[in-house]
Amino acid sequence: MSIFEQRESDIRAYCRVYPVVFKTAENARQTDEDGKEYIDFFAGAGVLNFGHNNPYMKQAMIRYLEENGVTHSLDMHTTAKREFIDKFVKTILEPRNMPHKLQFMGPTGTNAVEAALKIARRATGRQEIVAFTHGFHGMTLGALACTANQYFRGAAGVPLNHVSHHVFGCEVQCQGCENGCGLQHLNELEALYADSSSGISPPAAFLVEAIQAEGGVNVASQAWLQALAKLAKKVGSLLILDDIQVGCGRTGSYFSFDGMDLDPDIICLAKGVGGMGTPMALNLVKPEVDKHWSPGEHTGTFRGQNLSFVAGIEALKYFDNDNLMQDVRAKTEIIQKHMQPLAEQFEQVQIRGKGMIVGLDVGDGTIARAVIDTCFENGLLIATCGTGGRVVKLIPPLTISDNDLLTGLEILVQATKQALEAVA
Amino acid sequence: MSIFEQRESDIRAYCRVYPVVFKTAENARQTDEDGKEYIDFFAGAGVLNFGHNNPYMKQAMIRYLEENGVTHSLDMHTTAKREFIDKFVKTILEPRNMPHKLQFMGPTGTNAVEAALKIARRATGRQEIVAFTHGFHGMTLGALACTANQYFRGAAGVPLNHVSHHVFGCEVQCQGCENGCGLQHLNELEALYADSSSGISPPAAFLVEAIQAEGGVNVASQAWLQALAKLAKKVGSLLILDDIQVGCGRTGSYFSFDGMDLDPDIICLAKGVGGMGTPMALNLVKPEVDKHWSPGEHTGTFRGQNLSFVAGIEALKYFDNDNLMQDVRAKTEIIQKHMQPLAEQFEQVQIRGKGMIVGLDVGDGTIARAVIDTCFENGLLIATCGTGGRVVKLIPPLTISDNDLLTGLEILVQATKQALEAVA
Amino acid sequence: MSIFEQRESDIRAYCRVYPVVFKTAENARQTDEDGKEYIDFFAGAGVLNFGHNNPYMKQAMIRYLEENGVTHSLDMHTTAKREFIDKFVKTILEPRNMPHKLQFMGPTGTNAVEAALKIARRATGRQEIVAFTHGFHGMTLGALACTANQYFRGAAGVPLNHVSHHVFGCEVQCQGCENGCGLQHLNELEALYADSSSGISPPAAFLVEAIQAEGGVNVASQAWLQALAKLAKKVGSLLILDDIQVGCGRTGSYFSFDGMDLDPDIICLAKGVGGMGTPMALNLVKPEVDKHWSPGEHTGTFRGQNLSFVAGIEALKYFDNDNLMQDVRAKTEIIQKHMQPLAEQFEQVQIRGKGMIVGLDVGDGTIARAVIDTCFENGLLIATCGTGGRVVKLIPPLTISDNDLLTGLEILVQATKQALEAVA
Amino acid sequence: MSIFEQRESDIRAYCRVYPVVFKTAENARQTDEDGKEYIDFFAGAGVLNFGHNNPYMKQAMIRYLEENGVTHSLDMHTTAKREFIDKFVKTILEPRNMPHKLQFMGPTGTNAVEAALKIARRATGRQEIVAFTHGFHGMTLGALACTANQYFRGAAGVPLNHVSHHVFGCEVQCQGCENGCGLQHLNELEALYADSSSGISPPAAFLVEAIQAEGGVNVASQAWLQALAKLAKKVGSLLILDDIQVGCGRTGSYFSFDGMDLDPDIICLAKGVGGMGTPMALNLVKPEVDKHWSPGEHTGTFRGQNLSFVAGIEALKYFDNDNLMQDVRAKTEIIQKHMQPLAEQFEQVQIRGKGMIVGLDVGDGTIARAVIDTCFENGLLIATCGTGGRVVKLIPPLTISDNDLLTGLEILVQATKQALEAVA
Repeated sequence: MSIFEQRESDIRAYCRVYPVVFKTAENARQTDEDGKEYIDFFAGAGVLNFGHNNPYMKQAMIRYLEENGVTHSLDMHTTAKREFIDKFVKTILEPRNMPHKLQFMGPTGTNAVEAALKIARRATGRQEIVAFTHGFHGMTLGALACTANQYFRGAAGVPLNHVSHHVFGCEVQCQGCENGCGLQHLNELEALYADSSSGISPPAAFLVEAIQAEGGVNVASQAWLQALAKLAKKVGSLLILDDIQVGCGRTGSYFSFDGMDLDPDIICLAKGVGGMGTPMALNLVKPEVDKHWSPGEHTGTFRGQNLSFVAGIEALKYFDNDNLMQDVRAKTEIIQKHMQPLAEQFEQVQIRGKGMIVGLDVGDGTIARAVIDTCFENGLLIATCGTGGRVVKLIPPLTISDNDLLTGLEILVQATKQALEAVA
Repeated sequence: MSIFEQRESDIRAYCRVYPVVFKTAENARQTDEDGKEYIDFFAGAGVLNFGHNNPYMKQAMIRYLEENGVTHSLDMHTTAKREFIDKFVKTILEPRNMPHKLQFMGPTGTNAVEAALKIARRATGRQEIVAFTHGFHGMTLGALACTANQYFRGAAGVPLNHVSHHVFGCEVQCQGCENGCGLQHLNELEALYADSSSGISPPAAFLVEAIQAEGGVNVASQAWLQALAKLAKKVGSLLILDDIQVGCGRTGSYFSFDGMDLDPDIICLAKGVGGMGTPMALNLVKPEVDKHWSPGEHTGTFRGQNLSFVAGIEALKYFDNDNLMQDVRAKTEIIQKHMQPLAEQFEQVQIRGKGMIVGLDVGDGTIARAVIDTCFENGLLIATCGTGGRVVKLIPPLTISDNDLLTGLEILVQATKQALEAVA
Repeated sequence: MSIFEQRESDIRAYCRVYPVVFKTAENARQTDEDGKEYIDFFAGAGVLNFGHNNPYMKQAMIRYLEENGVTHSLDMHTTAKREFIDKFVKTILEPRNMPHKLQFMGPTGTNAVEAALKIARRATGRQEIVAFTHGFHGMTLGALACTANQYFRGAAGVPLNHVSHHVFGCEVQCQGCENGCGLQHLNELEALYADSSSGISPPAAFLVEAIQAEGGVNVASQAWLQALAKLAKKVGSLLILDDIQVGCGRTGSYFSFDGMDLDPDIICLAKGVGGMGTPMALNLVKPEVDKHWSPGEHTGTFRGQNLSFVAGIEALKYFDNDNLMQDVRAKTEIIQKHMQPLAEQFEQVQIRGKGMIVGLDVGDGTIARAVIDTCFENGLLIATCGTGGRVVKLIPPLTISDNDLLTGLEILVQATKQALEAVA
Repeated sequence: MSIFEQRESDIRAYCRVYPVVFKTAENARQTDEDGKEYIDFFAGAGVLNFGHNNPYMKQAMIRYLEENGVTHSLDMHTTAKREFIDKFVKTILEPRNMPHKLQFMGPTGTNAVEAALKIARRATGRQEIVAFTHGFHGMTLGALACTANQYFRGAAGVPLNHVSHHVFGCEVQCQGCENGCGLQHLNELEALYADSSSGISPPAAFLVEAIQAEGGVNVASQAWLQALAKLAKKVGSLLILDDIQVGCGRTGSYFSFDGMDLDPDIICLAKGVGGMGTPMALNLVKPEVDKHWSPGEHTGTFRGQNLSFVAGIEALKYFDNDNLMQDVRAKTEIIQKHMQPLAEQFEQVQIRGKGMIVGLDVGDGTIARAVIDTCFENGLLIATCGTGGRVVKLIPPLTISDNDLLTGLEILVQATKQALEAVA
């Protein structure tokens, strides 16, 4: 029995899917201790947008360590932090005329969501949050109440109150209705909020992902997101956009909602924002909301991670020009070209996504598991998501080489055909 | 106006106390951009037990990066993770005959506490948690309900339910009663639990710090902790020991409760466990409790931080022999020798602590703030804690040089005298 | 200043609408201290289905008092109680093949609802209750969480958890959609319950009124009620039918849902069940649900009111034959004949209802208030309901004389025309 | 199988203890259908302070019915209501200089408590309520959260939040400490409220019974009640005194706390206030608290019960002079004279109480049950209370004849000796 089996908690999960020990990694490849290489279509659950051990980031981190840069600083000012903020403002916020302030917190997505909920409740004086079916927002109690999946909710051990879930704007079951039902549901909500005898009041905030990654790669329609934003404004609720998994360039632009004419009050970032896969979380908060904080009210030891700032600055440089995003768009086409035939060949298959997050919905968790197991055997790391794990999620590094991308797609397509034909 | 004032959230706090920009750091010294050096008695709120840029850790991390070690891996197996677990088991657990399993989660203390609460509730089928007055356990909703301080609780925006607070075993107000009242309170609790008409039932767990760091350096008596552990066992509740700030060698032994004949069901670690100040959190959970987890139920992106493992292994090597702990005991004496005269000279001063966490309680937050401001001017970083910030907390790196320690103590003693004489 | 103004709580309400002191009452008439008589279209908010001081009941109560019958007995057996149960079973339950048991509790509707919620949660092991927009179920904390009106909810002082509100099957805004949206909403709910990632789980019970009386005389369609019952059965939830205001003959049959092919697990009764307006509440609970009670778990001093039993037996005798119900149907026609022309004449007027509960929705609370004020001046007691009090509610004693009914309708029609023409 | 067994809910309880059917009752006697008479030391759980079918009340009610007095009126003004308010103010409030207003609500004690909690939360803007161990305040969700007994709490089906329980001032276990520990607990609470890091904040209200009747006839010491009142005032909390079971003359004065120099903000009354055992509940609320109500916010159908007013006026006449209270004091002596020898003879027996509520604590529920079963066989109705039902509670009508009192005491003493000797 390995030390993992002896001493690591029974809660361990991904290691059960990939039962090897990884030693090194570079761009879109991970290598195990036996020297076997795997193409990585998982990217640390969407953290490694810029590849494992991105050379720019690696060098910047090594240099920072060699020069005795401050690694831990709580929320004291450091040179690295100033440079990150400066770069983020100039590269991301100013071109979009976004007045948002940057709030760093405990460096996990769930901490970012918890902070967003707090300030939304403070700023509005309301308690209720509206989240959406299939949404995933984290594991700590406040964020978990917003997460829809029953498996995670069942671990809370206490009731998950002060959050209600409503229908997301473009789920599997809505495809036939051209997004109509999502919009209709918002109209219904608006009528209920206007009715003082409905038993339902406007929330402090609507918490939404433009693309639900863990939820099954469900892409909200622009019409629905705009209607949601309009409703939020009308009833005095904030709009919190959780861009943790699909932000930072994943969809072909920095934010997943770029170009949609949305203006979220709070945007939650984590995962890719630190570039190297080191922990970092960041909320962008409009000043008129942010001003409701008193100093240190949402404190935490690991706020303001300098190594993540150092690598994160390198990540931001990818947005100095459009080269990477052009690459993403080109690779998006490649992915779609390989995936769409599966949807044509197999009735139960749906392909969803935007940019370099793509969901291959095979309609059943057992089949999806068979697909990823075969992929693993054939040297491709890829994982499932969605209800019952029925969706194979493609989320490779944006920097993946065309060669690795094509090889990986080939492995995936073959594994999918094999699994689907086995049950046909 | 600096970029921080323009664009960093109003919630920023420590940077308001130390209004400079830090550039480099080494062992117990931080240097700002103007080249001014500060002796560090704060150590990143107790993270940097082994000093800023600890040379062993730094080199190990650089080497790991140069060799393209896997930096991000979720909870997949990596070589670094195996080595960390192996080292932790051999160095810490086996010598103490501790059968605990290691659970890694989102790398902040609050995530560790949230995971502990979940599994305690699951394992016992109960909802209520008992936490203690002046306890600090984090900012996310589940952990925040356990945190006692009203300032933090006030930011929740929703009721903090399913946790009740009881009197900690050795607080300021108990000094006159030789810890009696804490014990008496436990006896009262036991009677209430035994009474089916008390309105109070035994909790899923008691969540306690052996030394409340943020709460004001309140040291629980061994008698009280043992009585608490006995009560927990008697009523079928788990004992969760939050050792996040005072574990990892801070008190002169790896755990703060070593030698107290305690056997906690769950121990929460974070801060110092990653060595370099990079994020990491870890729960030690008894197998009979841990087995209640299903795979992935408390998931998270940044579980299993490899750079923190790499540095953390170096931290664990300090416990291969007793050298560092001997040092800590020697420095403890130095600190006490300098601090005790303050308590003798000034009636309102109390000195509390164990090992290299010491609280200088000056009885009033304004005075304490004057002390740390003067210290900062004179080149010493130190912070306050406790109700109203009335306690100056000494928590320097364990590896601080005698020279820096003495210089820092001198600055502190002078600043304290100055502040207290000003109000005399 | 009267003693009422001096010493009765500021919460007093109806007395502000009818600022006189009533002394006597008989059938559908109340007389004030100055001898002025009022026709009563309010009937104690639907309590006095059989008229004020119903002669059979009055005599039975006097006889019972004279014979020293047990007036107070908690839930001990009494002769009066046995006779009531016997009569209720034979007259109401057996003809309908209803196996339900009778549970008496604190004699108010809200206590009945609280008991129903408890046993539904116990029997299913679930916490959530689904109630409906515009529903009214009482003022104590458990029932209040099910009540939709924001005015009442705002007095709770604590969050109202564990209840979610969904769209009632036939509200004002649904008229244009031929009840379609209510059914569609149930279909949506069914899909959400079936989806383990929706964030929504099947409730312990659906709590519904077949006709929402306080909510504005909203009449659920049979199709929607049947769909609701089917959904409840499918997802393992109980169906609780709150018939407190519209049961006991009000709609032309004993239960408001008679003839709809429904089979509720629990039926809540109060108001009219005690006949004379004296307090009584009663739940009818299917044996397989009821068996989850342990003795005395939902106790209370005033369970089993003997004077209410004595009068209630007389009330039940009205259901020995169809005479009264025929009367009700005839009077229903009279009411409709007088009311419908208002809907034809005034665009904003809607007439809703079933049997002898009729809502005259004038679309605006100020207008409705003007209507009832004019009615009061002209000798008719009638009250408003619905959101903002926009609906004038006709709920006269079922035993009202044709003469009083016609006179009252005449006063009402004139007052309505006057109020609506004033704003035209 | 009787109709009760066939059709009455399994929750029925007292009828299981007294398995006969009662037909008539007069003063302190109930008679079953077989003509067997029972002396009543239970008085409808303390409702019938003035005896079954009190002749004055009976005649007043019959007259009221004969004259077609308004029986049901919601909260409209009636002649009977005015007379009751007038009589209550003149007889009870004015002599005590109490400025309180009278609020009528749904006529059960639990509704009174719910209303008190709401207005206390509204008036203070706080959510938490402090109730006490062994306290009993009702079964609806808000009141149930204040009730301490686990048997009742276990039926809630949802968490009982926003109430914390603290140690009552004079319980069994305190006897050895001369009430010291209750006072000490209040001192501890005061310190915790003053400490912003205790995790505990002052409540909206303290809800307390001066004598816990259901809780086991636990009599609070005057010193403790005064300390509680002082603490409430100091921390801005209201004092709610639940006098539902022991008010209305039971203790030898109208209120149980008369002569204790207390000034509760809200006093809850029910049970005896309606005189005849018919339902009624009444809160006395200080004007500065009451003014926070808006009209109708805590509504209900059966507020303002006129038959209870009519009988209640007769009850109030007993307080026109001191005759009844003198009687009570005389009978108190008789009871004590018979009971005390039991405490002297049997070590495990404690006698507690005040006036004509006396608890005979035999230390064990099984013994107590044996006592009351034997009493029942011998023609005495008496019930148990307290944890596990270990306390036999004497609560006869205040108007019981000396003869019945002596006979009943004789039966009780014999039954107690028999039961205790059987286990000796």
